[in-house]
Amino acid sequence: MTKKPVIGLLGGGQLGRMLCESAGPLGYQIAILDEENSPAKQANHNDLHVTGSFKDPAKIKLLASRSDVLTVEIEHVDTEVLEEIATVGVDVPDAQGAMTKKKVPVHPDWKTIRLIQDKYQQKEYLGQKGIPIAEQMAIADAGADRKASLQEAATKYGFPYMLKGAKGSYDGRGNFKVRSAEDFDTAVQQMGDQPLYAERWVPFEMELAVMVVRTEDDAGKLQKVMPYPVVETIHEDSVCTKVFFPPRNVSDDMQTRAQKIACDVVSHLWGRGVFAVEMFLLKDGQVIVNEIAPRPHNSGHYTIEAVPQMSQYKAQLCAIMNDFPDDFEVVPRVPSALMVNILGGAKPTSHDDLAELSRKLTNRSMDIYLHDYGKESKPGRKIGHITAIGYSSISKLVEMAQPLIASADKIRAERVGEAAPTVSTSAAPKVAPLVAVTMGSDSDLPVLTAGLKILDQFQVPYVVRITSAHRTPHHMMKFAAEMAQGGVKVIIAAAGGAAHLPGMVASEVHLPVIGVPVKASVLDGVDSLHSIVQMPRGIPCATVGIGNSTNAALLAIRILGGTYPEYAAQMKAYQTKMKYEVLEKDAKLSSDGWQKYLEVKQ
Amino acid sequence: MTKKPVIGLLGGGQLGRMLCESAGPLGYQIAILDEENSPAKQANHNDLHVTGSFKDPAKIKLLASRSDVLTVEIEHVDTEVLEEIATVGVDVPDAQGAMTKKKVPVHPDWKTIRLIQDKYQQKEYLGQKGIPIAEQMAIADAGADRKASLQEAATKYGFPYMLKGAKGSYDGRGNFKVRSAEDFDTAVQQMGDQPLYAERWVPFEMELAVMVVRTEDDAGKLQKVMPYPVVETIHEDSVCTKVFFPPRNVSDDMQTRAQKIACDVVSHLWGRGVFAVEMFLLKDGQVIVNEIAPRPHNSGHYTIEAVPQMSQYKAQLCAIMNDFPDDFEVVPRVPSALMVNILGGAKPTSHDDLAELSRKLTNRSMDIYLHDYGKESKPGRKIGHITAIGYSSISKLVEMAQPLIASADKIRAERVGEAAPTVSTSAAPKVAPLVAVTMGSDSDLPVLTAGLKILDQFQVPYVVRITSAHRTPHHMMKFAAEMAQGGVKVIIAAAGGAAHLPGMVASEVHLPVIGVPVKASVLDGVDSLHSIVQMPRGIPCATVGIGNSTNAALLAIRILGGTYPEYAAQMKAYQTKMKYEVLEKDAKLSSDGWQKYLEVKQ
Repeated sequence: MTKKPVIGLLGGGQLGRMLCESAGPLGYQIAILDEENSPAKQANHNDLHVTGSFKDPAKIKLLASRSDVLTVEIEHVDTEVLEEIATVGVDVPDAQGAMTKKKVPVHPDWKTIRLIQDKYQQKEYLGQKGIPIAEQMAIADAGADRKASLQEAATKYGFPYMLKGAKGSYDGRGNFKVRSAEDFDTAVQQMGDQPLYAERWVPFEMELAVMVVRTEDDAGKLQKVMPYPVVETIHEDSVCTKVFFPPRNVSDDMQTRAQKIACDVVSHLWGRGVFAVEMFLLKDGQVIVNEIAPRPHNSGHYTIEAVPQMSQYKAQLCAIMNDFPDDFEVVPRVPSALMVNILGGAKPTSHDDLAELSRKLTNRSMDIYLHDYGKESKPGRKIGHITAIGYSSISKLVEMAQPLIASADKIRAERVGEAAPTVSTSAAPKVAPLVAVTMGSDSDLPVLTAGLKILDQFQVPYVVRITSAHRTPHHMMKFAAEMAQGGVKVIIAAAGGAAHLPGMVASEVHLPVIGVPVKASVLDGVDSLHSIVQMPRGIPCATVGIGNSTNAALLAIRILGGTYPEYAAQMKAYQTKMKYEVLEKDAKLSSDGWQKYLEVKQ
Repeated sequence: MTKKPVIGLLGGGQLGRMLCESAGPLGYQIAILDEENSPAKQANHNDLHVTGSFKDPAKIKLLASRSDVLTVEIEHVDTEVLEEIATVGVDVPDAQGAMTKKKVPVHPDWKTIRLIQDKYQQKEYLGQKGIPIAEQMAIADAGADRKASLQEAATKYGFPYMLKGAKGSYDGRGNFKVRSAEDFDTAVQQMGDQPLYAERWVPFEMELAVMVVRTEDDAGKLQKVMPYPVVETIHEDSVCTKVFFPPRNVSDDMQTRAQKIACDVVSHLWGRGVFAVEMFLLKDGQVIVNEIAPRPHNSGHYTIEAVPQMSQYKAQLCAIMNDFPDDFEVVPRVPSALMVNILGGAKPTSHDDLAELSRKLTNRSMDIYLHDYGKESKPGRKIGHITAIGYSSISKLVEMAQPLIASADKIRAERVGEAAPTVSTSAAPKVAPLVAVTMGSDSDLPVLTAGLKILDQFQVPYVVRITSAHRTPHHMMKFAAEMAQGGVKVIIAAAGGAAHLPGMVASEVHLPVIGVPVKASVLDGVDSLHSIVQMPRGIPCATVGIGNSTNAALLAIRILGGTYPEYAAQMKAYQTKMKYEVLEKDAKLSSDGWQKYLEVKQ
């Protein structure tokens, strides 16, 4: 097909590899500057690549001469060269063979990369822009009296506090927790000559991250700042090991707030592309920004499968090429995802079980995707990742994916020399219930039996519980809330008399609730029917006929059919079967006559 | 990571390229035999590749010597060499440098490939196994009296009939429609020396295709034969141009039957892998097999996005490596998909608009995926494809994706020299309704108003119609059926008195139907309530309170929340807002006292 412009990429690691995996089908040409056989070059072969280090100015210029735009998969690059390329240009031969200067745009802007390279300056800048950050102070340069400066930080922030290298470190490496004045000597020694800063200790509850897309027109005018969903990130040994989408037990409000802060941050940067904004969620609900990565990021790998129409890699390509679709909004196409990094273990084969498990665990409720980076295994090295996609809640997904987590934890334990945690050998996960059935009293169970049989017949996973509205009101509400969080899609509630259970459950959850009126000792069930159906405006309860749990179950299955095509198909088959049963009876009645029909039936 | 066994691939075209795109993240090593810079080699770079033709026996043996298993992306390969490699082996040096024979398994089996290479023999074999095929007869060899043989076919099948080349042709090339005895000379001349056969003319309604996975244990014992969904394929100029999943207006029964036939076919072949079974659907409902491809196939491209957990390419890898997950079932993760091939146009840039359109059309209800094969454009050449994924029915998807279809049709028209069809310049598709609202009489509309406002407030796309159960029974049923086929997820029906509308709609569709009892002139609406709620076992109707269309709409939104997370989120926000409204009132009542509260309110 017609060739698209050439994107010059500094660095050919796993981020570059996944960028190339996205670029190939879209027809983008990528020229990679890195060593031969680097992960990205395995997935993208052409005659534009440059062999060498992405820190070598001459090689960067050679790359630029072959490219229409430059981008990075790592921020530790020479921004002086990038500035020169973008503002002065690189030498390229013209048609007559004479050298002329060609300016090549750099995205994200070299100013952004330069700012982000210095973590202290990065945060100072954000602080000036009103972004919430942890308090920080610069530590005296190496050579000056660092210990006095460390003491000053202790006076300001108390113990413990964090001592951090401002440059050249990432994934939390180059951090030192100063617990008391006795740590000063060790800190000075361990951190070496690098520029340092101190940061107030932040006792966070959780680490959050948001990927943000930033687009600009060719004049550098900001156009779009668009967030991906919030994720929870887990770091162990200063490296990201797991990512949860959505974050566990974080309210929607809080998530919206984190997205807003991330967008604020990125709106204050320069250039096009995707950015990761890493944040701390504090006990008091405060969200503060920890650091920014001006590129695709480990916390955004889940988007390959959860936002397949616009993964962080595709977004990076579209953004830097100014090709971003106008009306696009980030809508995840699945409700939950879990990303587990594969880090090299104690032995070169330590990760084999985990990779193998990723193949075996895929089932009807969970899809597993392995990403092998084509790298040699070394202890602690990121050599791949696994994304599990769930079709209900993150908590159910985590439950189903437990063997993956346990296997990754085992690799780590062996590597760091801890006693290995027990790994469940059973790879068979539980099936997450889609329907919760509850009743006010066990005397309602016989009424529900017919409906439960229907659920069995359609192979719908469900739970059945007794939660009385009047005898166990709190138990009932807790049950309802748990069901809603646990991935259940429909609740069926049966009750009689002053039948409050279905309506109360409906007021606790955001799910469809189906009420089954049970005929009590008086009034033929009309009391139950009216109690259930006549809900106030605002809180609907889907009511079925008195005692008709069959229809409650069938209604639940019709509802599930909207999400799961197999239930829609089963429902169609069920209705066809009913039709033929009646048609058969009619044919029999028609041929036998009503007298014989009645005789045979009796 | 630990390296997986090497798969030797004969052919490096687009099928090989997409196989490599699947293999990379999974860590499979692929050694490709084809020319330098072939589409597959662009997406997979390593030092195992062999440069040359996949028809060259020496090169095939070199490839085999580097591989643990061989497979093909094209069936026109030398099966004598493959047989030798699998049964006798290829020379490889042992540790001492002496040559020893290494047997390399071939999947699918060389016997399968050999059978399929001869389309006449292929169909003869299927016929013997009881598979429905079109009647056929061999035509006398070139040199013998072909015209007499053609006359014999005419006597047997009448005119028109099909004359087909038995070998070396695919995508329908090498077919000749014999309309009368006057065509005999032209046929003999055009078809040349190749072995021919005649086939009874099959006036099919539609072409269907099913991908099937076949697995075997190492002893060659059949393990699994598993079908993908049925698709509808469109061929123009003897080349596949479009694929629809699911096929349009083909009943579930018919689809199941086509899948069963496809599985029957594949169970009679040999070896592991994926197979495409192409079929004709006849007017009388008969399904007959047209031909088989022993490899990933154009009709299965849609699985990359519609069955992302196990695309045809991943299935091919897992199957040939005997790595197929034990408990896996093919469950599409989206309800509809449309694949449009990008065929090179009259000019090298004719396809640019179509590729560009694929980027612009992506919206909230439709995801578009471009697949550029990295090939130079030539008229009629397959240089890429586009898959559109819909989140409701295939008919709605086709409606939304109309600009893609029109653009592809325009390229074809220019290429074949027809007048170009008009292409809509508007790229903005309509939003497919998710809720259908209907009422028995326009007098019910005021009751529905509150609910319609709720749907507006939640930005739910809907349609509103009047369909009286008693005055327009057929109109009502037609409406219901259309809604169910058109991607609507929930129907709301309001009626009063002998309120039959909701129940009748529920008996026509497999969707959840919400009934709103409307208070008529007598009995305070209890008549309507009982008419709606007391449905017979088998056909549920979700009934809400009398006149409470607000709750009907909210219930519909709760139901949509199971499929669309944004509606679940909106519902939670709505419930929170209600809570705070009541809490505010309570605070006001508590601080003002009830007397003042009432005064202010009045």
